[in-house]
Amino acid sequence: MDPREEPLSSRTLYEGRIVTLRVDQVTLASGVQTEREVIHHVPAVAMLALTDEGKVLLVRQYRHPVGRAILEIPAGLVEVGEDPRETARRELMEEVGYDADNLQRIGSFYSSPGFSDEIIHLFLATGLQPASREADDDEDLRVLSLTLEEWREALEEEGTMDSKTAAAFWWLQARGIERCLQR
Amino acid sequence: MDPREEPLSSRTLYEGRIVTLRVDQVTLASGVQTEREVIHHVPAVAMLALTDEGKVLLVRQYRHPVGRAILEIPAGLVEVGEDPRETARRELMEEVGYDADNLQRIGSFYSSPGFSDEIIHLFLATGLQPASREADDDEDLRVLSLTLEEWREALEEEGTMDSKTAAAFWWLQARGIERCLQR
Repeated sequence: MDPREEPLSSRTLYEGRIVTLRVDQVTLASGVQTEREVIHHVPAVAMLALTDEGKVLLVRQYRHPVGRAILEIPAGLVEVGEDPRETARRELMEEVGYDADNLQRIGSFYSSPGFSDEIIHLFLATGLQPASREADDDEDLRVLSLTLEEWREALEEEGTMDSKTAAAFWWLQARGIERCLQR
Repeated sequence: MDPREEPLSSRTLYEGRIVTLRVDQVTLASGVQTEREVIHHVPAVAMLALTDEGKVLLVRQYRHPVGRAILEIPAGLVEVGEDPRETARRELMEEVGYDADNLQRIGSFYSSPGFSDEIIHLFLATGLQPASREADDDEDLRVLSLTLEEWREALEEEGTMDSKTAAAFWWLQARGIERCLQR
């Protein structure tokens, strides 16, 4: 049987714009009681967007929590009542100005399940058509279009990426661009 | 030039065992002022541990924030003054009971830089020797040893993994086990 923890009580200490902080009391399988800090965060989507020419669409964006700009695949938060696939299409339009004919789910993963419930749904977006970009007011990002080799060099130069971009980059390395563009 | 945000002020609202919550005021490049919620978390390490027989060492662990057990690569938090490489060696011993002759850094990534500064340093661990396991009191985990194909099947069955495990799995798919075991 899977290891399990039994919840005893829960206190919400902060409800913000992006995160909610809870402190929960739980009983471990051993009977020991302990405290778990939980950051609630809405689900997110991320898109590995490939043009018909085999280029990857990326964004360079300042991330205040880490105090620097990083090179990422486009992403965004799922709105209430929205299907993640719709979010992927909407965010691709908002962040890089493309509509996608095909959205294929690559996988879903928790960004850091030791302290947060955030889940990221990763999509492969192909059949891209330029559309008019309608960026969010509080986002300042640069759009880049790179070959896989240029992307590899850029990530090497930066040193640190983010988890969704690492997962997407290595997924693409394993899969190969050719296979992704075949319908 | 990279996009940037200028910090104006910062309030710490919670300091816990694992996370610290701050709310910062920043000025965007456009001149607009906005609020950024920041979860501070210590750095972590994660280990893609391969036995000489080409099996991957994994842990199945209950994760309270997501309310379920998930299959992950071994990982742990960097202690104050500790080099991430030392953490990787220590956590490999604590979580799966192996010592590693070789630790090679695969890469580093922020788990979710939109709201958190957590960074995960990912290592390839080879030349594994069984050692006595000294598990943490508040961790209840099962150790598994799977071939790459068994790992793929297990992840498919689970549906959702975590970001460090997704990154490590796809890195290994791209690289191939043979190449990892060559010295």
